[in-house]
Amino acid sequence: MIKQLSLPESSFTVTPWSVKGDVDYDKLITQFGVKKIDDALLKRIKKLAGGEIHPYLRRGIFFSHMYLDKVLDAVEKKEKAYLYTGRAPSGPVHLGHLVPWMFTKWLQDKFNMPLLFQIPDEEKVLFKDNLTAQEAERWTMENIYDIIAVGFDPKKTKIFIDTEYAGHMYKHACSVAKKTTASTAKALFGLTDSDNVGKYFYTCMQSVPAFLPTVMEGKKTPCLIPCAIDQDVHFRLTRDVAEGIGFPKPATILCRFLPALAAGGKMSASEMDTLVAATDSPDVVRKKIMKYAFSGGRDNMEEHRKYGGNPDIDVAYQWLMFFEEDDAKLKKIHDDYKSGKLLSGELKMILVDKLNAFLKKHQAAREKAKKSVEKFMLRD
Amino acid sequence: MIKQLSLPESSFTVTPWSVKGDVDYDKLITQFGVKKIDDALLKRIKKLAGGEIHPYLRRGIFFSHMYLDKVLDAVEKKEKAYLYTGRAPSGPVHLGHLVPWMFTKWLQDKFNMPLLFQIPDEEKVLFKDNLTAQEAERWTMENIYDIIAVGFDPKKTKIFIDTEYAGHMYKHACSVAKKTTASTAKALFGLTDSDNVGKYFYTCMQSVPAFLPTVMEGKKTPCLIPCAIDQDVHFRLTRDVAEGIGFPKPATILCRFLPALAAGGKMSASEMDTLVAATDSPDVVRKKIMKYAFSGGRDNMEEHRKYGGNPDIDVAYQWLMFFEEDDAKLKKIHDDYKSGKLLSGELKMILVDKLNAFLKKHQAAREKAKKSVEKFMLRD
Repeated sequence: MIKQLSLPESSFTVTPWSVKGDVDYDKLITQFGVKKIDDALLKRIKKLAGGEIHPYLRRGIFFSHMYLDKVLDAVEKKEKAYLYTGRAPSGPVHLGHLVPWMFTKWLQDKFNMPLLFQIPDEEKVLFKDNLTAQEAERWTMENIYDIIAVGFDPKKTKIFIDTEYAGHMYKHACSVAKKTTASTAKALFGLTDSDNVGKYFYTCMQSVPAFLPTVMEGKKTPCLIPCAIDQDVHFRLTRDVAEGIGFPKPATILCRFLPALAAGGKMSASEMDTLVAATDSPDVVRKKIMKYAFSGGRDNMEEHRKYGGNPDIDVAYQWLMFFEEDDAKLKKIHDDYKSGKLLSGELKMILVDKLNAFLKKHQAAREKAKKSVEKFMLRD
Repeated sequence: MIKQLSLPESSFTVTPWSVKGDVDYDKLITQFGVKKIDDALLKRIKKLAGGEIHPYLRRGIFFSHMYLDKVLDAVEKKEKAYLYTGRAPSGPVHLGHLVPWMFTKWLQDKFNMPLLFQIPDEEKVLFKDNLTAQEAERWTMENIYDIIAVGFDPKKTKIFIDTEYAGHMYKHACSVAKKTTASTAKALFGLTDSDNVGKYFYTCMQSVPAFLPTVMEGKKTPCLIPCAIDQDVHFRLTRDVAEGIGFPKPATILCRFLPALAAGGKMSASEMDTLVAATDSPDVVRKKIMKYAFSGGRDNMEEHRKYGGNPDIDVAYQWLMFFEEDDAKLKKIHDDYKSGKLLSGELKMILVDKLNAFLKKHQAAREKAKKSVEKFMLRD
């Protein structure tokens, strides 16, 4: 349903640390060697989920995968399988981060799966010159509130912080490291000799939670990682080494990015005006959307009424695809905008109201979360 | 007192993983940029140690240092200062390993210093292709028995295993990693792009115990690392980054290697015939010394009686410098051998008896140690 802008070849780059240009997701599937989620797979998920399918699947937001079928096999046979996702703290959680987490919650609920939630609090410190460990530590707890606010089941969810939980991780990270040459790290992550050795090693720590289900269960246990597609490169490495060190290859289910307000690329916490933070007030949300959301409308009202807007490039409409769950409502907005009946400002206000309702709930849940942190933490 | 064989330029190499050729220690001092322990420093140590000086210092076995004076300042002012040394398990402990540990015990006793003993059980697994984590784990406990058998004070000594204690180490290792480029690791450790990323990161874990005294005391606390000179490269890196991440530079006190029986280089556990393991039986010790110890004697008894042997290249004599504490006895052996009065076989038997007496005590202490492991372990 989301169409790509037509752009010249290689006009975008996607790495775990930066997304530039307008992403061609079909091209990414080829580049990354992952598989498209096809209709047969969608039907199977729907059946196993009791006849329901998440809007992110219906709308192609979660659009590709690796080995998802193996995890569904386990679900079908009522065998234990884990979810694993994560968040590297370096700033506030924004709406783009919530997308895979909300979907992860849906998977947890529908398939009754335990979830391991990694907080790699060292990652951004290693990759950002001016981020200190102290700042990352401060953001760690702030981010955990947002994670818990998504509504994960405390009985089935364990959150752990790399620098704290390393006693259970480092050994396995070294097993991955032994199988990973500096050449491989350079090729996969674009590192050079000037990069610090922590960047070379880090990916090994991101592999570990994919193996923890097997460590915890004492037998080979499948693991499904819902995440944005920029993270797939880490798990390609994980899949390459997994079997050689006695672990099953993890499965991934991969989503597109919530577009930046200013259009093009993934939201980035370093550009606060192109994102909406999970803690933004209604007034801030309104101002950001009205001011920055790239519009697919015409230059003036007369032309807009006459020729209509373009929802495919309109960021407000794109965001509604992530936050308006009702297909009928979404279709009406799409058609009204395209026909010119709905103006850009009106479309933006629909989004503002939607987001503010969403964030009101989220922020209330986030306040409550502050009291239940320890129920979720895997502290050594 | 140990003179070097005269050898062509650059006929030796010293890295933490291999020592080749006959080492020119004076040249190493220049190469590594460390300082010679001079007479003034020896006098100061003797005074602070209550008038006693360890044979390893008298004999130039511990021959160089960095910042030792700063640690002595702390000792003098009765301020807390720590010792730190370590052992990477990959096989049995041999006599060469015991040398710095025995000296470390002397420092602990004389200066009343707490000791952190690191077991980097991941190091050799990362650096040796065919060493598995399971084998390293087995050697870990075997090696710990030998460490405890040296006689460290259980009230002042904490042994910790990297893969187990990483929850307290990994965070600081990342701080070191952030300041260490791949180029630096390549230059210091001779790594290439074909080496695994664990080798690049490992040195950061070896830095951490130098910082733990400061972490544990909650204020900047000096740390002195007694070790063989091949390990200095790690601590050069530690010193380079320490102050930038809020820790004092660690001091080192560095020793020569116990020569291999077959002459040339450090003992290596991978060449079992050129070393004596701490667990060897009296019979095995005798056979190894008689068969493999490189002799400085003449070709036949007549010539030996006439011209005398050369203790400077005789491995049995060199070993006695490490294991015969009595200077007068050692001098008599030296002079008798040099004059031809003492034959090579007789010299070797003196060593055999000395070592077997030493090992009898060590092995008895090692058996006892098996029951007191937990008194020493820093388990998370």
